[in-house]
Amino acid sequence: MAGFIKVSRFAPSELAKPPKIAGVRFATAEAGIKYKGREDLLLAVLPEGTIAAGVTTRSKTCSAPVLWCRDQLAHGQARALVVNSGNANAFTGRKGAEAVHITADAAAKAVGCRPEDVYIASTGVIGEPMDAGAFSHLLAELAPKAKESAWESAARAIMTTDTYPKLSTATAKIAGQEVQIAGFVKGSGMIAPDMATMLGFIFTDANIDLPLLQKLTREFADKTFNCITVDSDTSTSDTVIVFATGAAGTKITDGATPEAKAFAATLHDVMRDMAHQVVRDGEGLSKFVEITVTGAEDDTAAHKIAMTLANSPILKAAFAGEDPNWGRVVMAVGKAGEAADRDKLAIRFGDILVAENGQRHPDYAEEQGAAYMKNAELTVTVDVGIGAGSAVVWTCDLTHDYITINADYRT
Amino acid sequence: MAGFIKVSRFAPSELAKPPKIAGVRFATAEAGIKYKGREDLLLAVLPEGTIAAGVTTRSKTCSAPVLWCRDQLAHGQARALVVNSGNANAFTGRKGAEAVHITADAAAKAVGCRPEDVYIASTGVIGEPMDAGAFSHLLAELAPKAKESAWESAARAIMTTDTYPKLSTATAKIAGQEVQIAGFVKGSGMIAPDMATMLGFIFTDANIDLPLLQKLTREFADKTFNCITVDSDTSTSDTVIVFATGAAGTKITDGATPEAKAFAATLHDVMRDMAHQVVRDGEGLSKFVEITVTGAEDDTAAHKIAMTLANSPILKAAFAGEDPNWGRVVMAVGKAGEAADRDKLAIRFGDILVAENGQRHPDYAEEQGAAYMKNAELTVTVDVGIGAGSAVVWTCDLTHDYITINADYRT
Repeated sequence: MAGFIKVSRFAPSELAKPPKIAGVRFATAEAGIKYKGREDLLLAVLPEGTIAAGVTTRSKTCSAPVLWCRDQLAHGQARALVVNSGNANAFTGRKGAEAVHITADAAAKAVGCRPEDVYIASTGVIGEPMDAGAFSHLLAELAPKAKESAWESAARAIMTTDTYPKLSTATAKIAGQEVQIAGFVKGSGMIAPDMATMLGFIFTDANIDLPLLQKLTREFADKTFNCITVDSDTSTSDTVIVFATGAAGTKITDGATPEAKAFAATLHDVMRDMAHQVVRDGEGLSKFVEITVTGAEDDTAAHKIAMTLANSPILKAAFAGEDPNWGRVVMAVGKAGEAADRDKLAIRFGDILVAENGQRHPDYAEEQGAAYMKNAELTVTVDVGIGAGSAVVWTCDLTHDYITINADYRT
Repeated sequence: MAGFIKVSRFAPSELAKPPKIAGVRFATAEAGIKYKGREDLLLAVLPEGTIAAGVTTRSKTCSAPVLWCRDQLAHGQARALVVNSGNANAFTGRKGAEAVHITADAAAKAVGCRPEDVYIASTGVIGEPMDAGAFSHLLAELAPKAKESAWESAARAIMTTDTYPKLSTATAKIAGQEVQIAGFVKGSGMIAPDMATMLGFIFTDANIDLPLLQKLTREFADKTFNCITVDSDTSTSDTVIVFATGAAGTKITDGATPEAKAFAATLHDVMRDMAHQVVRDGEGLSKFVEITVTGAEDDTAAHKIAMTLANSPILKAAFAGEDPNWGRVVMAVGKAGEAADRDKLAIRFGDILVAENGQRHPDYAEEQGAAYMKNAELTVTVDVGIGAGSAVVWTCDLTHDYITINADYRT
């Protein structure tokens, strides 16, 4: 399947190049789990004292690695991360849990830590039993080869239908000292995160308390990964983990301090950038669309309305066709089920006021909308005329390529 | 847009031919509202004493005709029905309500009744002001030409992206006397009814009390129109109305009598057939899919899980690709948010047991699933292993033709 879809038009012209973060090392291998001729296994080795905070999918049929990670996130100690692509190890029963244990044991031995310090994520086909014994021996070979500079190959090894590796990096100044925050994420289809999305891993040398890191990770996951959708479908494997080695800067414990705020703002930037990159590689997309809803009863209602627009197949097909079909925006607002005043509704495409007070604006001409729709990046703003709630979400269009990719994923 | 998509493979080889129902007459005209060279205006004339029961969309941005119909359904007296295609008269502000009044007044004059006895429905583009004055004069010409036999032209006049007219007819034996129930429906895209779907009109000569007819209409709408989805998108115009002239058979007042039960069963049959015909003409479909969920906490939970499967773009794209990708069934069960026991989940494609006890069945071979998927009509059955709740819903696949139709609907 990979290969016949070209790289997303929204891929960055140059990949982000994260700096070395002391002791955070990556090694990758061709384990042949499903893909041939490419790397599909990642081992990340983390220095002693690293802590981990994360969020996982709310799917009721979550994968075996997700259950494992939840257990380990409770204590938050971390020394290694193992990720494979090609098989999600989801809906694989007792054998799925066994595969996780085999992997954790092998990684623990390779790195010299407890199995509980190993975080595991798998992505790919659901329901196919995964034979961890067939590749776990590779971990011992990978550990000594792991390099602090191998960010790009790490990001590539976890890809499935992604058309480019998604890296992000930023530096926070904390009490005069530089703290690095960098990460990578995979995800392109089955993207409608519920508390987390697909696989995203962020690494920092910040010296931060686990409870505060957990709080920030949850908060920004809600504002970034949980505000994107490609196709309304929620993965069984969604996992986002932030690893902090504690090597750099002042200790951050109180969220109200300037140090904490500097770290939080930078973490938010990195997570938003990663979330956007997932949408910008949405399966088959030709448009990147930002949807803003204002005037809702509260922020939760605004988010629900925005996501209803972002998930409407018929509206997304209109984006693909460069059709300024704002009637479908009206439809989606109505479908969301949240309070909206039909006679106060206002709709903008970019800066163009299309409709106001429940009807088409007298100055709006279809040609304006049609010209605007030719842009690769679109913004749609809807005011529903009820209250002060607002939300922003990001999505893409629904194209022929989405069908092509997903009608023939496994064969 | 019409014309380049061929007639659905699921169109009946012969259209249903409803009998005459005394006094129920239809006339149609080319009003040129949007379409050229086809009829787009329907007037149905109903005999004195006709009652009407109906359900309308729950959309928060419902159309002006829907608001009008709700008011008239409160008293339930009916003498005429006016339907136009090409313009939904939704999100058209004060002018939208005016267009409804102009239409009701003109129809009332033409038929010789009160405006409140006129039911109105519009379907087509949302947001475009509708100039009812441009066609309301046609109603006076149509009334004297209306014929009891003109079922097919009535069904054709209300079509939009439909590829065939959808008619249904059945006869109930009530206390030895024949009662006719017949109707027509339009709908193909933007189909995810919320208490009703698109436009459906049913006519009967049954002699039934209004409260009982209302109760049955609501009950069967929930079991038929509210159990179908093409694309998860809910129309602003959904309306289903049952008109009963009262000319035939014993008076039916008590729902527990054999007469009421005979009528109810036949009405249910007609409504289910009409709902199925909408899905069988789902925009761009190549597969008709019945989804059954059992073992849920209750029927509501089962319905939610079934609809989540039926609305999953990634699963529907797999159907289009004839890919037995049951991992996506697992994903959709998890996404639904209702209780499901991952380790008791069982999945069947037709009679083929694909998965059981939370993993692939040892006897299941991919070739079996692949061969089954080649059928035009598919059944997917999922037991979620929790309780006794069950539900059945109907949907279609998501194809390239859906994108083609909706990327270019208005141009």
